[in-house]
This record gives sequence, structure tokens and C-alpha cells, in this order.
Amino acid sequence: MTPTAKLRTLQLETRSLLCIGLDIDPAKLPSVIHSFSNPVFEFSRRIIESTSDLVCAYKLNFAFFESLGDSGWETLRRVRNLIPKNILTIADAKRGDIGNSSERYAAAIFDDLKFNAVTVSPYMGIDSIEPFLEREHNLTFVLALTSNAGSLDFQRLNIQNKPLYEIVIEKFVEKNHRENIGFVVGATHPKELQAIRTLAPKAPLLIPGVGAQGGDLKSAIINGCAKNDGEKTLAVINASRSILYASKGENFAEAARAEAMRMLDEMRSCK
Amino acid sequence: MTPTAKLRTLQLETRSLLCIGLDIDPAKLPSVIHSFSNPVFEFSRRIIESTSDLVCAYKLNFAFFESLGDSGWETLRRVRNLIPKNILTIADAKRGDIGNSSERYAAAIFDDLKFNAVTVSPYMGIDSIEPFLEREHNLTFVLALTSNAGSLDFQRLNIQNKPLYEIVIEKFVEKNHRENIGFVVGATHPKELQAIRTLAPKAPLLIPGVGAQGGDLKSAIINGCAKNDGEKTLAVINASRSILYASKGENFAEAARAEAMRMLDEMRSCK
Repeated sequence: MTPTAKLRTLQLETRSLLCIGLDIDPAKLPSVIHSFSNPVFEFSRRIIESTSDLVCAYKLNFAFFESLGDSGWETLRRVRNLIPKNILTIADAKRGDIGNSSERYAAAIFDDLKFNAVTVSPYMGIDSIEPFLEREHNLTFVLALTSNAGSLDFQRLNIQNKPLYEIVIEKFVEKNHRENIGFVVGATHPKELQAIRTLAPKAPLLIPGVGAQGGDLKSAIINGCAKNDGEKTLAVINASRSILYASKGENFAEAARAEAMRMLDEMRSCK
Repeated sequence: MTPTAKLRTLQLETRSLLCIGLDIDPAKLPSVIHSFSNPVFEFSRRIIESTSDLVCAYKLNFAFFESLGDSGWETLRRVRNLIPKNILTIADAKRGDIGNSSERYAAAIFDDLKFNAVTVSPYMGIDSIEPFLEREHNLTFVLALTSNAGSLDFQRLNIQNKPLYEIVIEKFVEKNHRENIGFVVGATHPKELQAIRTLAPKAPLLIPGVGAQGGDLKSAIINGCAKNDGEKTLAVINASRSILYASKGENFAEAARAEAMRMLDEMRSCK
């Protein structure tokens, strides 16, 4: 099965499009967690334990682990290994370099850390992403139109009446014979998300920006899911801070579950 | 002193524009090194020891350290700490994410690992790079026109008769009031390098692509150095594989020194 087909099956089984982003900032952890020898690990453990039946994916943001010092990489691996086998694991690392370097990034993320999926930056061109794409069992999400205000600066510049992000999508759709390419599109751009779904009708879309960043969940689902499918699949809707930090009290894991449940209910009721 | 002024002073003192890229692939190490408990560290130690009087900078490619597993980050830190204090240390990490994530990458690279400089990818826009730029004592090299063939795919697309990489450069030149922004421009594009030097007359340019990738050293120097300066400065010319793997024998460190010396002589004799 291709990574795209696998994701579709997973989403039908879990009845979930929800991805929880583990962007774990030590400064934001509930005080009850600070006494543990590895607070980030313990916090992640409890969040995963209390939400893993509600999600199709977890996304680990490498920036937050790398800023932990020498133990960060090991913590990243240990957190990744807590995730149940059936759930998609996304390395949110936004890598991209010349071929021999990208090959090393792909080896670190897919072979060593054993993530199923990765996010990459397309600026350096298709050959810089090839080493990721050659891993036919792994899903590579290419940044297209991101959720931040800075997406205006370059991604939306027009090249012969087409914004750059559309050209990025078109080029990678052409390379998608292994069905292992997806795109990152912010929920903060609902109209463009709809147009992107037409450009890439069958590609997985990783959609951050709901929750703390203000994107609307309902329109992310309606615009982001694959078309003519009869089912709601292939949108992976990420929320990070709104779930992780739903409460700063001892009940943080229950509060995270309640917020994840609320989003899931909205997803499931969405027509 | 601004990071740009500091680099200029450093290059005048060392009479060197040479940066050695520590892209250390365990599979390419001389067999004499394999018996050490940490071959990558030992190899790096010997290379640095035998070349540090010839360079203005070392560039550590994060991909190669990350693929070493849990000990990779610690090895990265230990290698970085081998570099003499006066030499510029460049974290070749090509990071870039939304603001709160980029802030964590900047904290990891500048505050924790204590690199002087970093490479970043501009695709996500200026706000994704701001957390790096706010560190006024650190130099941030923005990818502009990279040395690989894939630089054709997006970087050279025309937006109102200007290639994307020129727009990237113009936008960041505008933001360069702290004189802490530089650009990455491959030596494989000599004509464009000349044009870029005109667009950014005083910015440091990190120029990879000489050596194994085939870029011409002399034209990299002539086109890459700051103009009307009376001195040859502000081009940081990187070679990795051609120096690191100049010999696979026990004499690898001497061979690396000889190749670095050969490049340095060519730089110093260049009018």
C-alpha cells in the first residue's frame, strides 16, 4: 500500500483527521510536571496516553526538542517511541539541503528515528527533496502555503499569474508516482486551501493553523479533504498549543483530551 | 562591532576567505580513524588541528551529525567547541519555521550550541527568520541561489522579470539594519554571483560549490568579495569534500592541509 492509501485507511479506521502537534515548550508546562527528571518526556507521555485513541497522527516539532540540549535528541526518540504503532508519526523538521545532505536528514528521520512522515522546505528545488521521496514507504509533506503572515512574502508572489506555492504544488504533483507526497497548507487560508485541493486532488494535506493560530476548523475540513471520495479523508488537521496547554493545572491531560474530543466531534459532525 | 564588521576584521587578520565544511560522512573516513570510540569527533579534531590557521570559518553540516543517532548532538557540540575562539562557526542547518518554532531553533543554535552564524531557508517568509535576526551578535545567512541543479526549479523563476532569489535578497537587504544578514550563493553560478554582489554590496556571502561541486575558485573570489573595499573580504568560500577527503590514507590531515593551503594560495594571489 502507498503511504497515501495507508493514511486513508488509518483515517477511516480511527474516524479521525486530528493530528496533535507536540510543540513542547518547557516554560509552558504545568508545575506538577516540573519535578520529573525529564519534564518534556513525562508531559508528552501523559498527553499521548490521554489522546491516542482520538488522533490519526502526532507531529513532533524538532525545534522544541533541539533546544533541550544534548538530551533533546534522545527525548525526541523516546517520545516518538511512545506513539502507538498504528498512528502516523510526522517529523516536523522542515529540512531541505543539497542531495548528499538531504540523504543524511532522510536517514536520521526515517531510518534511525523511524518516523513515518516528514515536513520539508522546497526552496532548494526538487533534487533537494528527492532523497526523501525515494523512501517509498514514507510520506513527505512539502511546505506549500504556510499558516504565518510571512507566507505573503514569497509563497504568494506571482509567476505568470500563478502564485509560487501553486507552482511548487504542480511540480511535486508531477513527481508523485509513488503516492508519497503531501503538502503543508495553513488553515488560515481557507479559499486557497480549496484551490489547492483541486490542484492536488488525491494528495494528503497537512493543515496547521487551527486553534491558537485562528484558522477555522470547519472550513479546513470541508476544503481540505479529498474530493469525490465519499468519505472525509486525506486532510491531517493539526492543533498544538490549544490542546497541549488547554489547562495549566494538574488536570492538563484530561483538559487536553476534552479539547481534542471537542475538535473530533466537530470533525465527525461536519458534512 | 556588527557581525559583518567582525567578519571583515577576521578575514583581514587571517588573510583567509576559506571556510571548511565539516560534512563528515562516517562511510568516507580513513580506516585509521575507525578504531576510535567516536570516529567523527576524532576525524574532526585532526582536520581542525591541521587547518585552523588557514581558515576564517568552519561550517558544520547538521545533517551529518543528526544521522549519528542520540550521540550526534553531543558530537556536534564537542566538534564546535574544538574550533578556536577567533574563527567564525557556521551552523549549516537550513532552518526556518513559524515564529515560535524558529525562536527555539535560534535558541538551540546560538544560545545553547553557541554558534556565531547559521544558514536559514527563506521560503516561509521574513517573520520566520526574524527570531534569528533579533540576535544582533549573530550572523544569519539566508539561502538565495544555491549550488545544486534544483536551484532552477524555484529560485530562478521570474517574478516581473526578476528571479525569485533576487527578490529574496532585496527583501532581506532592507531588513539588514543590524548588519547581521548574509546570503548563500553557489559558486556554480559565477555570473549571477556578480549580480548578487551588486544587489547586496556589503553583505557577507557564503559561497559553497567550489571543489567537489565544480565551481571555479577564482571567479568566486573576484565576483564574491565586497566591492570598492580595497581589500578582498566578505566572501566566505566553502569547500568540504575536496579538503576532508583529499586522502583516504593515514596522512589525511596533512593532505587536507595541503589542499586547504593550495586554495588559500590561490585566494591570496587573486587580483
